[in-house]
Amino acid sequence: MAVGEHIWPVMHPIAGLTLGTASAGVKYAGRTDIVVMAIAEGAAVSGVFTQNAFCAAPVIVGRNHLSAGDIRYFLINSGNANACTGERGLADAESCCQAVATLGDIEARQVVPFSTGVIGEYLPVPKIVNALPAAMSSLSVNGWDAAAKAIMTTDTRPKGASVQFEHDGEVISVTGIAKGAGMIRPNMATMLAYIATDAVVAQPLLDDMVKRAADQSFNRISIDGDTSTNDSCLLVATGQAGLPMLSDPAGELYDKLMAAVTDVHRQLALGIVRDGEGASKCISVAVTQGGNKEECLKVAYAIAHSPLVKTALFASDPNWGRIICAVGYAGVRALDTQKVNVYLDDVCIVRAGQRAQEYTEEQGQAVVDQAEFSVRVELGRGHSSDEVWTTDLSHDYVTINAEYRS
Amino acid sequence: MAVGEHIWPVMHPIAGLTLGTASAGVKYAGRTDIVVMAIAEGAAVSGVFTQNAFCAAPVIVGRNHLSAGDIRYFLINSGNANACTGERGLADAESCCQAVATLGDIEARQVVPFSTGVIGEYLPVPKIVNALPAAMSSLSVNGWDAAAKAIMTTDTRPKGASVQFEHDGEVISVTGIAKGAGMIRPNMATMLAYIATDAVVAQPLLDDMVKRAADQSFNRISIDGDTSTNDSCLLVATGQAGLPMLSDPAGELYDKLMAAVTDVHRQLALGIVRDGEGASKCISVAVTQGGNKEECLKVAYAIAHSPLVKTALFASDPNWGRIICAVGYAGVRALDTQKVNVYLDDVCIVRAGQRAQEYTEEQGQAVVDQAEFSVRVELGRGHSSDEVWTTDLSHDYVTINAEYRS
Repeated sequence: MAVGEHIWPVMHPIAGLTLGTASAGVKYAGRTDIVVMAIAEGAAVSGVFTQNAFCAAPVIVGRNHLSAGDIRYFLINSGNANACTGERGLADAESCCQAVATLGDIEARQVVPFSTGVIGEYLPVPKIVNALPAAMSSLSVNGWDAAAKAIMTTDTRPKGASVQFEHDGEVISVTGIAKGAGMIRPNMATMLAYIATDAVVAQPLLDDMVKRAADQSFNRISIDGDTSTNDSCLLVATGQAGLPMLSDPAGELYDKLMAAVTDVHRQLALGIVRDGEGASKCISVAVTQGGNKEECLKVAYAIAHSPLVKTALFASDPNWGRIICAVGYAGVRALDTQKVNVYLDDVCIVRAGQRAQEYTEEQGQAVVDQAEFSVRVELGRGHSSDEVWTTDLSHDYVTINAEYRS
Repeated sequence: MAVGEHIWPVMHPIAGLTLGTASAGVKYAGRTDIVVMAIAEGAAVSGVFTQNAFCAAPVIVGRNHLSAGDIRYFLINSGNANACTGERGLADAESCCQAVATLGDIEARQVVPFSTGVIGEYLPVPKIVNALPAAMSSLSVNGWDAAAKAIMTTDTRPKGASVQFEHDGEVISVTGIAKGAGMIRPNMATMLAYIATDAVVAQPLLDDMVKRAADQSFNRISIDGDTSTNDSCLLVATGQAGLPMLSDPAGELYDKLMAAVTDVHRQLALGIVRDGEGASKCISVAVTQGGNKEECLKVAYAIAHSPLVKTALFASDPNWGRIICAVGYAGVRALDTQKVNVYLDDVCIVRAGQRAQEYTEEQGQAVVDQAEFSVRVELGRGHSSDEVWTTDLSHDYVTINAEYRS
């Protein structure tokens, strides 16, 4: 079960980046489970990684390789997270990088490894190494679709997004894929995302762009630091478009590119929410009129994390009492409850801290019967606002997570 | 569904405190839903209340009355929380107090009101007032059982606890009841608790005792401030035992009384956990070897709040990966993951940050197949420890909270 129709977008190829897949049998036989992405020489590559203290072996190795620059390959496997595997896990990740390097005639430090799947089991390195030639031989600029499928674990759908814009007569593309099927606070539901553009971007600016874009997307579906062992988000600028190099966060080209990159990140993040484990609804929680961003986020997360709000929304019950209760314990200092208003889409359900006089349950019901809607809270304290996305909490969530051995 | 057998304890009467119940039809016809507790003159009464910004009308009125002292009655109704009801809610709570005062020939400020149930609907004051004479005429020192039932909402069982100890040849009793059916973070699942002793305790010391006892019990099943609109915990010392007045937190009598009071609080809090909505397991999460109490609690709550850990425990799946993932994102600064050990009861599942070599899933399975067990985390950072209690997350939780209109 997932929210809404699944429409796979047109994935614009990114010159300078090819993708190949293969079946290694990491966990299941007969499904594609490894992806190789080959990146042309001269590209800039930036990433943000999990803040979990138990970060996985590939994250440690990948961060290290990335810091030296000159990255030429990504290697991703699903089915095994190579997390909590100690020294051997690090050696296994390095071995996989070396195998790619040998085939690609580069050095192991030019490969960034990624893993997602079961925690605490050793990576079946020989299986992965044996499947590499098949993955390498299938490298194609049109490999995005196959790659999006190969990185899935509990996902019910592949996630892809792709946009284009024009600048000085040149068409620039931004294309990305992601995996993850988390409700908010994905915890163990590892999120991986790979976004690429053919724009020409200086490394320091790209580092900044991936942080900003992740903050407005993936970090709005989980709380800071509340991440899995393997979460990673990578941004590649192949530099193959016929444009000057961008190095400052200013100007028309930067604005267009940042907007496109953020758009792709947000589409992918929303794709993860819509594919939330057992999700039947995708809900935006927006908090406005806050004294600062921090308190807006506190309130938004209190609502988004409340199992009681989430089960009420699964039941399509517009239970405003549970929503304001979450507002009340979110920890906003000296909150004047008589200034708080709550809306479901445009229907005011709470005004001045009490049930709105004109509100009828039928109005609320009509909103929450939709697959996607918003909960909006006005705090009456200032001009800050923020927004997070979440899902309902359903029977299917319990079933999936009680059965899946992650 | 609730965890374990339900055994109703012998409830020792407390001299100077009588309880009466009646059916007012607040929400449902034909069930007892109001309780009057009559407190003898000269008793000391202390309470701790919800920290939710949207606290209910009876909490505002009750805190105010309590601050003036000389309390003679508690009035409790189930079925309606009188929360988010504005000025009218305050007036309604005062009207109920006045009705008790008239019958008891005291003043309205000597009555503390409590409500639990649906939020945002006005209290049916006439129904309650009409039922008061029946409640007053049933006042009895043996009314604890009936009162425990009358305050229930989504509870599947009444909760009671009672202990006695001897001091200088005198038998002292501590008896209490509670309602609440929260999983951890009860949010809307209002918790009410009433504990009484015949010991003679000075008001300032009693104020201190209820805070300490609540902190070691009800505050270990929810996070600070993460409380419902109506949560209240009251401690009464009727002073009818033939003992000198206690006014200092020291000495043998104080130690015995504090232990007994804390014991009753903890039994009631565990009763709430065991009756957690849809709970099939009651789990103690203990964190030891922490650098300080705060980080121990952070880790304990990260585990106890994780929906992925909770669904795994519902499935009786000893999923150590999800547990250490929660440890990893709990926000402990500079955590050395190689010093972390995790146990299920006495079975070591993680040693030095990795799956314990000798661990088999059968061992873990045997532990988590039990209705009650412990998850214990050693952080390897110091000598602090703390413990919280939680439940699993089951299909029944979703069903109950999707259907109950709170």
